[in-house]
Amino acid sequence: MKILITGGAGFVGSRLAQRLLERGTLAGRRIETLVLADQAAAQPALLADARVQSRVGPLLDQCAALRVEDFDGVFHLASAVSGECETDFELGLRSNLDSTRALLDALRTRTEQGAPPARLVFSSSVAVFGPDPSVPLPARVADDTLPTPQTSYGTHKLVCEHLIADYTRKGYLDGRSARLMTVTVRPGRPNGAASSFFSGIIREPLAGLEAICPVSPEVSHPVSSPARTIDGLIAVFEASREALGGRTALNLPALNVRVSEMLDALEAVAGRAVRERVRFVRDERIAGIVAGWPGGATGARAARLGLQPEANFADIVQQYIADCRSAGQAETALRGLETR
Amino acid sequence: MKILITGGAGFVGSRLAQRLLERGTLAGRRIETLVLADQAAAQPALLADARVQSRVGPLLDQCAALRVEDFDGVFHLASAVSGECETDFELGLRSNLDSTRALLDALRTRTEQGAPPARLVFSSSVAVFGPDPSVPLPARVADDTLPTPQTSYGTHKLVCEHLIADYTRKGYLDGRSARLMTVTVRPGRPNGAASSFFSGIIREPLAGLEAICPVSPEVSHPVSSPARTIDGLIAVFEASREALGGRTALNLPALNVRVSEMLDALEAVAGRAVRERVRFVRDERIAGIVAGWPGGATGARAARLGLQPEANFADIVQQYIADCRSAGQAETALRGLETR
Repeated sequence: MKILITGGAGFVGSRLAQRLLERGTLAGRRIETLVLADQAAAQPALLADARVQSRVGPLLDQCAALRVEDFDGVFHLASAVSGECETDFELGLRSNLDSTRALLDALRTRTEQGAPPARLVFSSSVAVFGPDPSVPLPARVADDTLPTPQTSYGTHKLVCEHLIADYTRKGYLDGRSARLMTVTVRPGRPNGAASSFFSGIIREPLAGLEAICPVSPEVSHPVSSPARTIDGLIAVFEASREALGGRTALNLPALNVRVSEMLDALEAVAGRAVRERVRFVRDERIAGIVAGWPGGATGARAARLGLQPEANFADIVQQYIADCRSAGQAETALRGLETR
Repeated sequence: MKILITGGAGFVGSRLAQRLLERGTLAGRRIETLVLADQAAAQPALLADARVQSRVGPLLDQCAALRVEDFDGVFHLASAVSGECETDFELGLRSNLDSTRALLDALRTRTEQGAPPARLVFSSSVAVFGPDPSVPLPARVADDTLPTPQTSYGTHKLVCEHLIADYTRKGYLDGRSARLMTVTVRPGRPNGAASSFFSGIIREPLAGLEAICPVSPEVSHPVSSPARTIDGLIAVFEASREALGGRTALNLPALNVRVSEMLDALEAVAGRAVRERVRFVRDERIAGIVAGWPGGATGARAARLGLQPEANFADIVQQYIADCRSAGQAETALRGLETR
């Protein structure tokens, strides 16, 4: 089968690609070709695999070519992130709405020409939820909580969920929307996401660097590790429509954790000196965006697919440390780690 | 003030225009100019008023010109209807999504150039609600019921609600979305809306014609008269943001009525012979679309704005008869009416 990952050079996309290549199959079929579309080239380690093709350029520009190409499966991960969308409204519309619409219409064109509908998993986000004066936000948002997004990013994700559900209803594709929790710990540099600090306050101290936490230690947030997030995307792809239980989006599993608990876990795993590299300096812009996000989430439909959140945040910190070691990056990424 | 009505040559748009001209003011300000944009020219009676301008052509083509024009208020009513969207997917996307996006971006352009945000009322629809396997539909949908639309029309309306909320949050406009119930009794010919028969089964028998009801007499539906619908649009325009209670859409008042009760009311007002002109011939396509709509609705936020539904369906039939008489159309439109 032939698979497309949009955002295939990104953090989640690269890991998903690596995992699919290791598995070799998806939904019981052999993966022959894995196309990674992104603004940047795919990672060299992935490109070394003969099954991998890298397509570089804005997704919006790539979609015309997709109209004459058959994919059996698509993971649509490409997206401008929340902070970017708040500072550049047009970028958000183009990257998140127009690109998704172009992708859906490319897939529709193929089915109108007689191709079977491609299966598509869309990475939506817990950011579809937010507090509106007309609708109090529950402490933990569920699959069927009314989404009232308070950011452009969340609005775009919700709009795409509904377009995908309608294209699916019409038989143009077999779409499924999974709401990702905040994926942490992300390696590398901070990105434009307002949620970036949820990784930074773990990643930077482990690398021996000071980190700034822009929100109160009492802020609670639904998070997930990279590995569990990718498990979730694959399970949602492989599920039957009956098991999914509807065309609406479902929440992926969440570990609901306060910033203070994240830092307690960091200290338990890495020591007090590491934790003390985190300083609290409130950033009103970031804190304002985060205040519009739910403090926790539940994932009842994901649980029925066999998906569970991590048991505790220390497991997530350990997973990050193990990943850095296996990637041969311990010398820099874990420079600040105490020997205990 | 200068007001734009998109869909200003349509049934609701024309009546709204007439009402605004009669009032002379909106939200306490004098109406100087009323622009009626539509695919067809505005009604001659409206055009006779010096305040009225008619703009003819697809809304999508008109929006470029709107980027250099200031409106104080917009009623965005233009839309492809539900039946059309089900049979022509691209038409629905273009008429309902792309046109709304172009309108919102035209208004955004003006505020980015320093104009105050225009107030905009969007006519959303009770069709945003539908039964999804993951979410049981309540017997009566409320303002905060989770919308899971089961038609492209309902999907487009919901998507536009969320875009308008986000453009409003950003300060590009002051948008309010009001979900219209099925407006009945519409005069004239059946249109492409799947809900068209809700008017036809009253209008045709009164005109002495046979009418086909394509669904069971047990089907229940939330309806509203033209007059109450226009009251609702104006009240939502005039309300303060605080009174609206949030940026999410609100339901306009609904009279929840079964087809059999509509016919009972027709008989009570117009006599048995009139009622007997309605025959039941099931149409699976129409019945399928209608089965995806809620059987009733509540409007708690509208009630807090002082808006109430009609007390009974006989009042709606009487309103239609009075309208035909005052428009001088009794001879044809009420040809079938028994003298009682």
